[in-house]
Amino acid sequence: MDKPQIGVIGMAVMGKNLALNIESRGYTVAIFNRTGSKTEAVVKEHSDKKLVPSYKIEDFVASLEKPRRIIMMVKAGAGTDAVIQELLPLLDKGDVLIDGGNTFFKDTMRRNAELDKSGINFIGMGVSGGELGALQGPSMMPGGQKEAYDLVEPILKQISAKAEDGAPCVTYIGENGAGHYVKMVHNGIEYGDMQLIAESYSILRNVLGLSVDEIAAIFNEWNQGELKSYLIEITADILTRKDDLDTGNPIVDVILDAAGNKGTGKWSSQDALEVGVPQSLITEAVYARYISALKDERVRASKVLSGPKPEFKGDKKAVIEQIRQALYFSKVMSYAQGFEQMAFAANRYDWHLNFGEIASIWRAGCIIRAQFLQKITDAFDEDEKLQNLLLNSYFTDIAKNYQSAVRDVVGLAVQNGVPVPGFSAAISYYDSYRAEVLPANIIQAQRDYFGAHTYQRTDREGTYHYTWYDEQ
Amino acid sequence: MDKPQIGVIGMAVMGKNLALNIESRGYTVAIFNRTGSKTEAVVKEHSDKKLVPSYKIEDFVASLEKPRRIIMMVKAGAGTDAVIQELLPLLDKGDVLIDGGNTFFKDTMRRNAELDKSGINFIGMGVSGGELGALQGPSMMPGGQKEAYDLVEPILKQISAKAEDGAPCVTYIGENGAGHYVKMVHNGIEYGDMQLIAESYSILRNVLGLSVDEIAAIFNEWNQGELKSYLIEITADILTRKDDLDTGNPIVDVILDAAGNKGTGKWSSQDALEVGVPQSLITEAVYARYISALKDERVRASKVLSGPKPEFKGDKKAVIEQIRQALYFSKVMSYAQGFEQMAFAANRYDWHLNFGEIASIWRAGCIIRAQFLQKITDAFDEDEKLQNLLLNSYFTDIAKNYQSAVRDVVGLAVQNGVPVPGFSAAISYYDSYRAEVLPANIIQAQRDYFGAHTYQRTDREGTYHYTWYDEQ
Repeated sequence: MDKPQIGVIGMAVMGKNLALNIESRGYTVAIFNRTGSKTEAVVKEHSDKKLVPSYKIEDFVASLEKPRRIIMMVKAGAGTDAVIQELLPLLDKGDVLIDGGNTFFKDTMRRNAELDKSGINFIGMGVSGGELGALQGPSMMPGGQKEAYDLVEPILKQISAKAEDGAPCVTYIGENGAGHYVKMVHNGIEYGDMQLIAESYSILRNVLGLSVDEIAAIFNEWNQGELKSYLIEITADILTRKDDLDTGNPIVDVILDAAGNKGTGKWSSQDALEVGVPQSLITEAVYARYISALKDERVRASKVLSGPKPEFKGDKKAVIEQIRQALYFSKVMSYAQGFEQMAFAANRYDWHLNFGEIASIWRAGCIIRAQFLQKITDAFDEDEKLQNLLLNSYFTDIAKNYQSAVRDVVGLAVQNGVPVPGFSAAISYYDSYRAEVLPANIIQAQRDYFGAHTYQRTDREGTYHYTWYDEQ
Repeated sequence: MDKPQIGVIGMAVMGKNLALNIESRGYTVAIFNRTGSKTEAVVKEHSDKKLVPSYKIEDFVASLEKPRRIIMMVKAGAGTDAVIQELLPLLDKGDVLIDGGNTFFKDTMRRNAELDKSGINFIGMGVSGGELGALQGPSMMPGGQKEAYDLVEPILKQISAKAEDGAPCVTYIGENGAGHYVKMVHNGIEYGDMQLIAESYSILRNVLGLSVDEIAAIFNEWNQGELKSYLIEITADILTRKDDLDTGNPIVDVILDAAGNKGTGKWSSQDALEVGVPQSLITEAVYARYISALKDERVRASKVLSGPKPEFKGDKKAVIEQIRQALYFSKVMSYAQGFEQMAFAANRYDWHLNFGEIASIWRAGCIIRAQFLQKITDAFDEDEKLQNLLLNSYFTDIAKNYQSAVRDVVGLAVQNGVPVPGFSAAISYYDSYRAEVLPANIIQAQRDYFGAHTYQRTDREGTYHYTWYDEQ
């Protein structure tokens, strides 16, 4: 066997699958895991593969071709710091260490700066696509030293997912924490997409009174059109499945309505708040998961708090099409917010992001993959300084043509007591963003009144304070 | 003059006014400011007052009665740490240092723990009411060592605002950062209240087509009823004011619709996300300020993005009453979220909060003062373990009686293209909270599908994973 060209630390399923993916492209891969038995099991299971196991981290590092290329796939957090501390004395200047975990971008910024002092390159790389993606081709978002990225680019391109046009779903994202930031926003957008699908399902089920089978057929049909995407596709599939235990019910009817989360959606919203950009749709999706998790409290509340009994008299087919339009419209708002968040973040954290490329590498391999992303790439190809997606003609037209549907759908759901925080956030955002004048003059007047916070004027430059009352 | 019983550091307007307030209750107050000229100016302006100036921090500390009681009113952040470092070698065990700034609660937690090592008591105290409140009686939210609070309680009670029943608007909030946390949530709620007022104004103005004078009269009337509060009162007042320059317009029509913020609303939302509690209304209010600040971008967008032309044909008087009900309903939702946030935070940060008392000390002195707060105190008096305000009969009834109005108002605004993120968040929250079943089963199914995140079942205990596809 060759001297390994790359090494993978962490033999849980993500690390193992990524190692196998790399090996399948003709590389020899060094592997290491803190608990050696896991490494042993991987080698045993894949004895025909060019995997070089080590049981001491020193041996692992020594086994690698220089400059060394190491991908860590370990649990994000303190574990990552511990591995870095062990590696640090063993590495040489110019080596490339890649953190492929779900790491908070500020940790990546810190680690990149710290390791840079020793001349070690550190890449924080978001990896999307789950276990299967890691094995067959994930979408990857690496950030760090550009020259370090260049050293691993050939491998990353080979192991990545490929879009329909054959383009590899990986690109250099930007400096230090940029890759993990973009992955975080990707995950936030994923929360938004999932919430919008859930709301659509809920209206179809609870207002229109459709059966799970009927809804499956609708999602299946939606997946043939402009909504075509992995999440719509799997939703259609999910809705056709029956319980694998003995109830005979659709599986969705036995799954508890309490959604978990692993924190990346939360981070995404917290940082939107930090950089000062409106990102209401993702945030509502995060809150919707939180409220879903309060299952016992909700059941108690449902006995006490009244609401309308849903009823529908009208043209179901027409409303189904309205829901489709509302879903697409709201998805556009969510991506408009997400991309504007990345622009604000780039400004705040001093990154140089290429938004068209980011959309482009999300076209395959990752959870939010969708043909729709091509439209985003096209929009930034047309104008790389585009401030907000809505200002591109394709999206302007979608908004123009579909806004009436989302207004009706929100009205219908609200009248029927079906919560639609995502759809509501979408139309509120649209109407706020396109508002030449918002009622924030009232807020600013109040702030000046009680806190002397001053205000600007509509008709001349400068900062003003009104004498609302005798201030002595 | 007596030896000063208390000292104030920081002679900007808040510190000066607080010192004058304390002095007016019969105390001798030591004062200090980093720039001595400010101290000099205060003493000169108030030469008849029992103020004892010092121009060296050593002299200031030496001048005080023991155990020393010192209130810092300095700009939050690094400045606070700098003052603490200067004071630390001069203080003795048992002294009480109070930070009355707008400090992030985690900084207060850290400082409290650090100073505690030297036996110095550290109280983080939220002070609300602005400059005038500081002078005449603020609402104060002190957190820290209980025995330290006891040493300052008599002074705090004297200088605080008094509720209608004469109760002082200060109480011991809880351990370490609890006071600043509660102040932060107070400010978040303030953002929510202000946003709801702005949305009400916007519908009255832009959908019903009312004049500023007519709207002033409406707010004035609302202030006679259950909405009676400082913010409604000043809104009515603001709407009657004319420009103080030469335009002759209502002042609100010349104030730019770009709302600023000082970060406490943002913190409040970020921590709601952190502790896992739905707090959508305040968050939407924060985002509404952010989007308002994108004035130039909005003006550009308004030329490109289409929307409905508002038109109203109907009974204006009836809709005005619906807006009033929607405002009250939404305010209830916002406070329900805010109080549940404090409960989650108490659990996370290990504080013992008395929610009835918190509502009680907000009844006067602070920006969100309102008779409505008495209802919250009553609710917690009835059941101190109340999980959510909505489960108390007074609030259950408000929800029951007013929900139809908020549904109509949201529908009206959305159809007319007037953004109502706050009202929408309120009804979404209500309908989610009272939902025995939410569509989060779809989200959890998706998570299990693409990430093997498992799910729980509605019909039996345990954790399950479905075989969605061949996982080999």
